[in-house]
Amino acid sequence: MCQLLGMNANTPTDIVFSFAGFATRSVEHADGFGIAFFEGHGLRLFVDHLPASQSPVASLVKRYPIKSQHAIAHIRKATQGRVALENCHPFVRELWGRYWAFAHNGNLLDFHPKLHANFKPVGDTDSERAFCWLMQELSKSHASAPSVEELTNTLQELVPHIAKHGTFNFMLSQGDALWAHCSTKLQYLVRQHPFGLAHLQDTVQDGDMTLNFAEVTQPGDRVVVIATEPITRDEPWVPMTKGQLLAFVDGVPRG
Amino acid sequence: MCQLLGMNANTPTDIVFSFAGFATRSVEHADGFGIAFFEGHGLRLFVDHLPASQSPVASLVKRYPIKSQHAIAHIRKATQGRVALENCHPFVRELWGRYWAFAHNGNLLDFHPKLHANFKPVGDTDSERAFCWLMQELSKSHASAPSVEELTNTLQELVPHIAKHGTFNFMLSQGDALWAHCSTKLQYLVRQHPFGLAHLQDTVQDGDMTLNFAEVTQPGDRVVVIATEPITRDEPWVPMTKGQLLAFVDGVPRG
Repeated sequence: MCQLLGMNANTPTDIVFSFAGFATRSVEHADGFGIAFFEGHGLRLFVDHLPASQSPVASLVKRYPIKSQHAIAHIRKATQGRVALENCHPFVRELWGRYWAFAHNGNLLDFHPKLHANFKPVGDTDSERAFCWLMQELSKSHASAPSVEELTNTLQELVPHIAKHGTFNFMLSQGDALWAHCSTKLQYLVRQHPFGLAHLQDTVQDGDMTLNFAEVTQPGDRVVVIATEPITRDEPWVPMTKGQLLAFVDGVPRG
Repeated sequence: MCQLLGMNANTPTDIVFSFAGFATRSVEHADGFGIAFFEGHGLRLFVDHLPASQSPVASLVKRYPIKSQHAIAHIRKATQGRVALENCHPFVRELWGRYWAFAHNGNLLDFHPKLHANFKPVGDTDSERAFCWLMQELSKSHASAPSVEELTNTLQELVPHIAKHGTFNFMLSQGDALWAHCSTKLQYLVRQHPFGLAHLQDTVQDGDMTLNFAEVTQPGDRVVVIATEPITRDEPWVPMTKGQLLAFVDGVPRG
């Protein structure tokens, strides 16, 4: 199984601290990694077939504090599809003049939807098929870009059609909201004033890694971190429930 | 005006040497850069709003020898569109289950084509509009992925409709071929056995940079480098003619 990490914030924020912890998990999830950052309508996508613990691309992400309001990262342990660049998440497509990024944790069995429209998989994973189907059905449901609320409603209708095929934890963003769906395991943490100290759950290099968020934030900042497993060990992570879909906007979860 | 650099090879080849010279030109082309690498059907896209001479992303590209058969790079000097990530070339879309990457050098005046189908610009450049229109018309012309020859024929018909609006030097690839169109300025170089010494045209850091390709190649290797201005000063660069469209496959230009 793969692991997911997402971030949604009300101000451009870097994900260096969380990603450093997350990347250590790639010892067990060694079949590639990827991370997508929205900067306004623009998108940066870094993918590598190497594990995040060894990839020079992942080292760059750990060193270069890219400021973003929406980021989605994924470390892969292949279940379906070869170890290849085209099978690394997040996947990206354009719809309504916006980029959409998607990453999935889980395994979908016998999921071969009709992809009769304009979104075709490039690789051979169940995940990219699911993303293409979601994009196809969203584009059929709305003639032009709807509001976040309308998109959430449409996704609520579409997601069960995929989720019945297996485990379907995913994150999706188009740069205005980040949607997270929990099928089996996903948790989130809201970081806001008063900010304090956080310790990474994972051991980075030779020791613990700690950050005092009070020193790197403004009082109005609000950041949500979403992950398969908690990234830090002293903050109030909230487990999502099975079947729950949340839209995170400006660091606030909306049901 | 921007500058373009492309590579097409019959074996996965890195572009580190050429990119090192190309990136120095970003002193005058300081409004962002980007480079796309195909690895099989997979694609890596690195973009940054910083100039290639300063960007940490460009440093990674200069250090990490990514092996690819098709690469397209661009350094931007903004003519239309803000300095923003979404306006950095290459642009990428998916069509027929393959990624397509496109970069443009030039300026198109009064080019506002009808984009009534499934390819909409995310940013606000003439270049991305041209790419979306090409994708739309290709998808209308062929029900599924045609051969490189058929694609070249269709592009020959489509390109003049855009080129009449101004300068339209571009590179386009879907991972099987790299198309280059010369509107005003584009040159290519075929590197093949017997390989020799090459000096970069541009001064990198404090001195000249030289590479003996005989030491890093196999006799059967064949690589084409395509650029707005020659990258090296002692190799037989071939200027393309105005209006010429070439498809490069396995290091061989096809008219």
